[in-house]
Amino acid sequence: MTGVPREPSAPDTGLLSPVRAGTPVEAAVDDPAWVRAMLETEAALARAQARLGTVPAAAARVITETAATTEPDTRALALACRESANPVVGLVRLFTRRVAEVDPAAAEYVHRGSTSQDILDTAAMLVTRRALGLVRTALGTSIDALGNLARVHRDTPMAGRTLALHAVPTTFGLKAVGWREALRAADRRLAWVAEQGLPVSLGGAAGTLAGYLEYAAIDGAPGDGGGGGAYAVRLTEAFAEETGLAVPALPWHSLRTPLADLAAALACASGALGKIAVDVQNLARTEIGEVTEPAVTGRGSSSAMPHKRNPVLATMVRAAALQVPALASVLTHCLVTEDERSAGAWHAEWLPLRECLRLVGGAAHTAVELTTGLQVHPGRMRANLDLTGSQVVSERIAARLTPRLGRVRARHLLTRASTEAAATGRPLLAVLAELAETSGQADAAGWFTAAELAELCDPTTYPGAAGGLVDRALTT
Amino acid sequence: MTGVPREPSAPDTGLLSPVRAGTPVEAAVDDPAWVRAMLETEAALARAQARLGTVPAAAARVITETAATTEPDTRALALACRESANPVVGLVRLFTRRVAEVDPAAAEYVHRGSTSQDILDTAAMLVTRRALGLVRTALGTSIDALGNLARVHRDTPMAGRTLALHAVPTTFGLKAVGWREALRAADRRLAWVAEQGLPVSLGGAAGTLAGYLEYAAIDGAPGDGGGGGAYAVRLTEAFAEETGLAVPALPWHSLRTPLADLAAALACASGALGKIAVDVQNLARTEIGEVTEPAVTGRGSSSAMPHKRNPVLATMVRAAALQVPALASVLTHCLVTEDERSAGAWHAEWLPLRECLRLVGGAAHTAVELTTGLQVHPGRMRANLDLTGSQVVSERIAARLTPRLGRVRARHLLTRASTEAAATGRPLLAVLAELAETSGQADAAGWFTAAELAELCDPTTYPGAAGGLVDRALTT
Amino acid sequence: MTGVPREPSAPDTGLLSPVRAGTPVEAAVDDPAWVRAMLETEAALARAQARLGTVPAAAARVITETAATTEPDTRALALACRESANPVVGLVRLFTRRVAEVDPAAAEYVHRGSTSQDILDTAAMLVTRRALGLVRTALGTSIDALGNLARVHRDTPMAGRTLALHAVPTTFGLKAVGWREALRAADRRLAWVAEQGLPVSLGGAAGTLAGYLEYAAIDGAPGDGGGGGAYAVRLTEAFAEETGLAVPALPWHSLRTPLADLAAALACASGALGKIAVDVQNLARTEIGEVTEPAVTGRGSSSAMPHKRNPVLATMVRAAALQVPALASVLTHCLVTEDERSAGAWHAEWLPLRECLRLVGGAAHTAVELTTGLQVHPGRMRANLDLTGSQVVSERIAARLTPRLGRVRARHLLTRASTEAAATGRPLLAVLAELAETSGQADAAGWFTAAELAELCDPTTYPGAAGGLVDRALTT
Amino acid sequence: MTGVPREPSAPDTGLLSPVRAGTPVEAAVDDPAWVRAMLETEAALARAQARLGTVPAAAARVITETAATTEPDTRALALACRESANPVVGLVRLFTRRVAEVDPAAAEYVHRGSTSQDILDTAAMLVTRRALGLVRTALGTSIDALGNLARVHRDTPMAGRTLALHAVPTTFGLKAVGWREALRAADRRLAWVAEQGLPVSLGGAAGTLAGYLEYAAIDGAPGDGGGGGAYAVRLTEAFAEETGLAVPALPWHSLRTPLADLAAALACASGALGKIAVDVQNLARTEIGEVTEPAVTGRGSSSAMPHKRNPVLATMVRAAALQVPALASVLTHCLVTEDERSAGAWHAEWLPLRECLRLVGGAAHTAVELTTGLQVHPGRMRANLDLTGSQVVSERIAARLTPRLGRVRARHLLTRASTEAAATGRPLLAVLAELAETSGQADAAGWFTAAELAELCDPTTYPGAAGGLVDRALTT
Repeated sequence: MTGVPREPSAPDTGLLSPVRAGTPVEAAVDDPAWVRAMLETEAALARAQARLGTVPAAAARVITETAATTEPDTRALALACRESANPVVGLVRLFTRRVAEVDPAAAEYVHRGSTSQDILDTAAMLVTRRALGLVRTALGTSIDALGNLARVHRDTPMAGRTLALHAVPTTFGLKAVGWREALRAADRRLAWVAEQGLPVSLGGAAGTLAGYLEYAAIDGAPGDGGGGGAYAVRLTEAFAEETGLAVPALPWHSLRTPLADLAAALACASGALGKIAVDVQNLARTEIGEVTEPAVTGRGSSSAMPHKRNPVLATMVRAAALQVPALASVLTHCLVTEDERSAGAWHAEWLPLRECLRLVGGAAHTAVELTTGLQVHPGRMRANLDLTGSQVVSERIAARLTPRLGRVRARHLLTRASTEAAATGRPLLAVLAELAETSGQADAAGWFTAAELAELCDPTTYPGAAGGLVDRALTT
Repeated sequence: MTGVPREPSAPDTGLLSPVRAGTPVEAAVDDPAWVRAMLETEAALARAQARLGTVPAAAARVITETAATTEPDTRALALACRESANPVVGLVRLFTRRVAEVDPAAAEYVHRGSTSQDILDTAAMLVTRRALGLVRTALGTSIDALGNLARVHRDTPMAGRTLALHAVPTTFGLKAVGWREALRAADRRLAWVAEQGLPVSLGGAAGTLAGYLEYAAIDGAPGDGGGGGAYAVRLTEAFAEETGLAVPALPWHSLRTPLADLAAALACASGALGKIAVDVQNLARTEIGEVTEPAVTGRGSSSAMPHKRNPVLATMVRAAALQVPALASVLTHCLVTEDERSAGAWHAEWLPLRECLRLVGGAAHTAVELTTGLQVHPGRMRANLDLTGSQVVSERIAARLTPRLGRVRARHLLTRASTEAAATGRPLLAVLAELAETSGQADAAGWFTAAELAELCDPTTYPGAAGGLVDRALTT
Repeated sequence: MTGVPREPSAPDTGLLSPVRAGTPVEAAVDDPAWVRAMLETEAALARAQARLGTVPAAAARVITETAATTEPDTRALALACRESANPVVGLVRLFTRRVAEVDPAAAEYVHRGSTSQDILDTAAMLVTRRALGLVRTALGTSIDALGNLARVHRDTPMAGRTLALHAVPTTFGLKAVGWREALRAADRRLAWVAEQGLPVSLGGAAGTLAGYLEYAAIDGAPGDGGGGGAYAVRLTEAFAEETGLAVPALPWHSLRTPLADLAAALACASGALGKIAVDVQNLARTEIGEVTEPAVTGRGSSSAMPHKRNPVLATMVRAAALQVPALASVLTHCLVTEDERSAGAWHAEWLPLRECLRLVGGAAHTAVELTTGLQVHPGRMRANLDLTGSQVVSERIAARLTPRLGRVRARHLLTRASTEAAATGRPLLAVLAELAETSGQADAAGWFTAAELAELCDPTTYPGAAGGLVDRALTT
Repeated sequence: MTGVPREPSAPDTGLLSPVRAGTPVEAAVDDPAWVRAMLETEAALARAQARLGTVPAAAARVITETAATTEPDTRALALACRESANPVVGLVRLFTRRVAEVDPAAAEYVHRGSTSQDILDTAAMLVTRRALGLVRTALGTSIDALGNLARVHRDTPMAGRTLALHAVPTTFGLKAVGWREALRAADRRLAWVAEQGLPVSLGGAAGTLAGYLEYAAIDGAPGDGGGGGAYAVRLTEAFAEETGLAVPALPWHSLRTPLADLAAALACASGALGKIAVDVQNLARTEIGEVTEPAVTGRGSSSAMPHKRNPVLATMVRAAALQVPALASVLTHCLVTEDERSAGAWHAEWLPLRECLRLVGGAAHTAVELTTGLQVHPGRMRANLDLTGSQVVSERIAARLTPRLGRVRARHLLTRASTEAAATGRPLLAVLAELAETSGQADAAGWFTAAELAELCDPTTYPGAAGGLVDRALTT
């Protein structure tokens, strides 16, 4: 089976994942980006070793320059992967040859003392950091846009909906500021990961850095007693400085907390974006019509129905949000990693990690189009609020009756009135007054003045603390 | 944000998924394969309509010929996806133009009465069918190879292991035939799906086939009373015949059982392959050494350690098996699909479906290399069986003592003897005889003759029904 | 830590899982039900051995009778589990004592030659079979109820909705029959599993049945040559007959296809029920109002809002459907089982299996209340169809214009008209005629007669094949 | 179906989840614990309102006292759940009656202005905080135990294993300190959640706190302008103080970040524990034998094999780790929550949250037994290191040859020598010298002195920085 013809396979162009097709994150995490990051890692390692005097400065320079200009055929590397189950072995072979062409002496110092996982893990962190940067930029734009929406619509009344039904009034401002808060929470988690949670990987063959130490001894590093710990620490710190990544507490070849943190932060972002998407879809329903997606010529058109303007942005975002939790669970599942390097659990991380980055990056980018262009229809919101007669404020009416009737009787009365109002289509207050009288509340008619009644039944005067909550959320 | 420069993104070459890099399934499910399947679907639809007299035969011919020669730029289609959240709208636009270049009249009949989901779902089934064919071919080869291993090693004794410890002896033949049975069970499930579970999708804009009927009426189809049901059935059947797919009970735009069936069968195959992989890895451990992966120059080499020959095939297969259950769960999750077409749940299926096919196809291909070349070491198996003294047959000794001592005392005696044998390294039988005597079993020395004792302690004579089970499994 | 006080823990009463609280499946899968099934399994094993002459008939009888009357303290068994990581060891100890109290000789034959996994796996299949019976009964009732709804509302027009928007008309009959079809498909898969996919487990300590054979030899069973295969087969068949379960191809201690099949069928059922739930919720939205859940006094009431009648049945069903895919993925994940018995993957199956059965059983039961009592509001359906002017039939208008204008121009015209109609609120046909004229279609006014126009714009006359599809689905 | 007899269902005693049976977390998260937490929440809410002057202090006192002594029948509450899809409605009804029995006036203030989700979410946070406390205590004990192991075995050499094979030497100290670090990382994440990530829930019917404000106005709270924000903030802060929970940025009925944080931290802990478990299992394998679980009479015994002492603690921990990632993914999935309160996504959180807490709590408790009693066998570690001849130090030999031969030739020579040594069983160094000579390295014999050779081949002198890494990890 080894002689099987390697059929050419065509690119994954995003055809099956429109949420990220053409968005910046795609290029940041594609195969060449990973290869570039691996080469940068090799270069940073050589420079770190040079800083400690165990690789000649000139060699580190040649390695760095060659890394910057080497553009391997990723397909050839991918095929070579099958011999070692990871892409580093083939890349190091090729890269060493390239360096040797420039300077054979420098080639001796490529990947010196290293192991595949040090390179691939570190490269993964570099790729991730760039992708997270793009995600965070996009989230930031949406956060601003939602802040604006919240300010503009601070007092725009709409129905608050629970279990699919009108509950009590809320405001679109509160809804928008809630979306914003969800994105901000996700962004804080991503920021923490980006700044502190992406460590270099430096452990050598089995996490002891023995190869690095052995070559360092050969290359004239001073011994340091204490089990080589001092050199190991200094090399790790120099490597971290050269890459801009964090210093880990220990080599983490089989201690995969960084992947769990990433999974968590990306799932959080995906969920926050997905929450916005399902809200937009529900509000955009034909019968509800309270928001529409930004109108762009051609977008959202249907192949069969000329009249439709589908909420395609929300659809793409939601599609991403339906995939990320499961993909992220692969990463947490792979925490259960045997030995000093797993035979499979490590290898199972790469694709889900890239896909999570790509889906979240695409969704964040797509959400920018959605949040910056969302069309809000206060008129429809207002009209919908009237759909239930005054039932959307029945909570308030119950509260106002409580001092008169006691809570149990007030509630009982309201429930009966609501049921009858719903059944007959008559206004709630009329039914209520009638019921009150027939049940012996002789003075029911006098409970409220006409003006009080009108005010009581006006859903726009029952926003609760919505305005204050918006203000507070916008200033913290 | 709409004016964002579309950065070019490079192909997904398999760099992060070596299990499938270069394997046949890759080309069968790549983006061009999906586009080809969509074009084949459009052609099959036109031919089906032509068979019913509602599209001119000549138009169907032009459409079919043009479909066969159109090779769209998948990247351009992917970018166009973002306007409609699916790739069909852009493809139909482009394809209609291509047909119009050949025959403007025929172009009127492209996608006639149809909807994006009919095309994409049907194309997904075509892509899937081809991928399943490759998976099944590979499974078949492994099934044969494992059958051979089971025959050859029908009576090769080895330790049966439970909860990581030696339990009682088994045979490698029984292990191999178990692997084979797991693959056969998976293959039967895949066969069922491939033959009956992949239906054409034909529902029109909202599952009523109204567009098809309307154009059919315009194009002169005889009315059929009964709500158009007869024409709908005939068109569905003709479409199924043209594509070779199954006839669904109803349009399934939002009834996604076929995806659930696919998820189930692919997860079953993935798990069966993964079971083999973890067994191979454990048996290949340095201390166990009972099997090694096929030796291929260069394969399994480590970037740091010249001596290693890593079990890379099993590693790649296991890496796939760690991903597929989560990806498959996205498909079952998306069964919860609202309305006549979901705004997101449908769109979330495509990537996980493709990835499941690709991972399972790659794993099945990789397993062929593993099962056809696996090196089995009966000598190590035999040596490992002796590691526990005779404790691996303690079950048998307990059974033989039971008639003499009763079950409780027999077991108690054995437990004490085992503990002491383990602690002191003395042979179990010696400890046992001693314990028996000191506990007042005056005649313990006479329980068994020397020959009986030797036989009792020989793990190779305690295979249970292993041989018979192998024979039976190989003949059913 | 072993001396830690075992704090009493209170029952899991269903408080956090209302979907199944008090439904029949709960009692069928609770801890005592598992213990009973384990005892039944021990009894069936003894009877099977008795049928083959290797256990005295009298002993099998005592074992069977004692099994029927033993009601162990499940909490004590659960605590004892921690010593062996499974509940069988403790149960066998206790049960043997109970049998010995009745007949010490019979006690020698309890669990004879057996192993924990044989008992627990077989018991799991017994518990599952009963639970599946309850699920199927409930699904059957819903299938009938939905069939009735489909018949009654075969021609009740409503909006077909795709991507959250009105697409073209459909009927409530087609929707109901689609729900029915999803349940029928799930039921067929459950039926297959219940009838053929639930095997007895009989492998002995490591899958070779060696213990059974050894005791059989001691107890006087005739040798059978062929590696004990014949006795093994006969014992397996007798065990299957005594339990009513299927005969497996091989011992399946670490070949877990039956769990994968169960996971698949249960996820399919969960998804089908979830699909109905989300549709009901969307149709029940205040603005849509096309269905309401059955009115039961007190149900669906809110703690704060007297007027609400929440769709609680759909809510509970959907809550189950959100959990089952992930739980089922644990089962498929655990297919990757090492050795002859996994140290953990087996043990991870029990809870997810029970929870899947309980959630699906509860959801199926809850769905019966939903489907048999669903209130359908054709008036609201009809009114909603008018919300878009005639846009819900724009597909038909486009089709009718195509012969006159060609497809591209027809579609272009309609898109412009739809946009303007949506923006201005004017009727689509009026805008269309105007546009046609101004764009030089001098005779546009004459395209259709007034009667034709009226018919064209009537959404109730554009059901497509809905009626026929309903008829066909109800008769197959 | 409403008249269906409610069959009694028996407790979930832990029979199917031995990892937590009888551990402290069980009682902390059982149904009565949830009910108690809900009652505490009602009491805390009343006291918070009393602090703000909108509930009489006497009423708050009666409510608090009654809450402390009310012990509802959780089964009755569970059954009542089915009417409202959550347990709060029934509990409030019952609790109000109980308060009214003591003081009818106080009963008017029970649940005043509140909503089910405020109570259940807050109670969930209280239950979670207690469970996290237990988890953290257990983790702390394991962290200490592992620290001790790391100190004791700082220099105990053992094989480092990658992809199932010996790679280079490591130390047991480094392995133990790695386990410790994984637990510490998990514990930090749990600490953050416990201290900052568990907010009170206070939003009222739809997240605006309108009910609270309305009653406050009735009850005489001073208006505050600004949309009620000031009172809302003060009430939230008082509620947080009364419960000891955090103050949220906004009501989070449908902004579920806290659940995502919990899912992340629990999955991280589960994975860290699972990593230890699989390492222990592999090291405990019969052929490896480097560790055994603590010996406790009776534990780990097999029902069939008297000699076995199964690693049951690791098995139970691993079984938990196989379930948690999927359960946690339900929580992240449910971030996609529609409207002001989801009809199902909220309800789907409860069971997975409790199960995650219970599994992680049980696993942490079980791990204490494992880590405090683990038996380490340095002799076996040392013996296993010799299994490959000197191949486990081939990395070092390659390094030492590199200055003489250049990297490529050094590596090539070593690979050939390793292959031959493995095939023939001859010592690596002997083969190496021979190969060197035959390949024209005339002076190969003189490369190293005998003493150098011996030192080079001694795996115990190649620990890399293991010692230093242990020291550093123990002091940070």
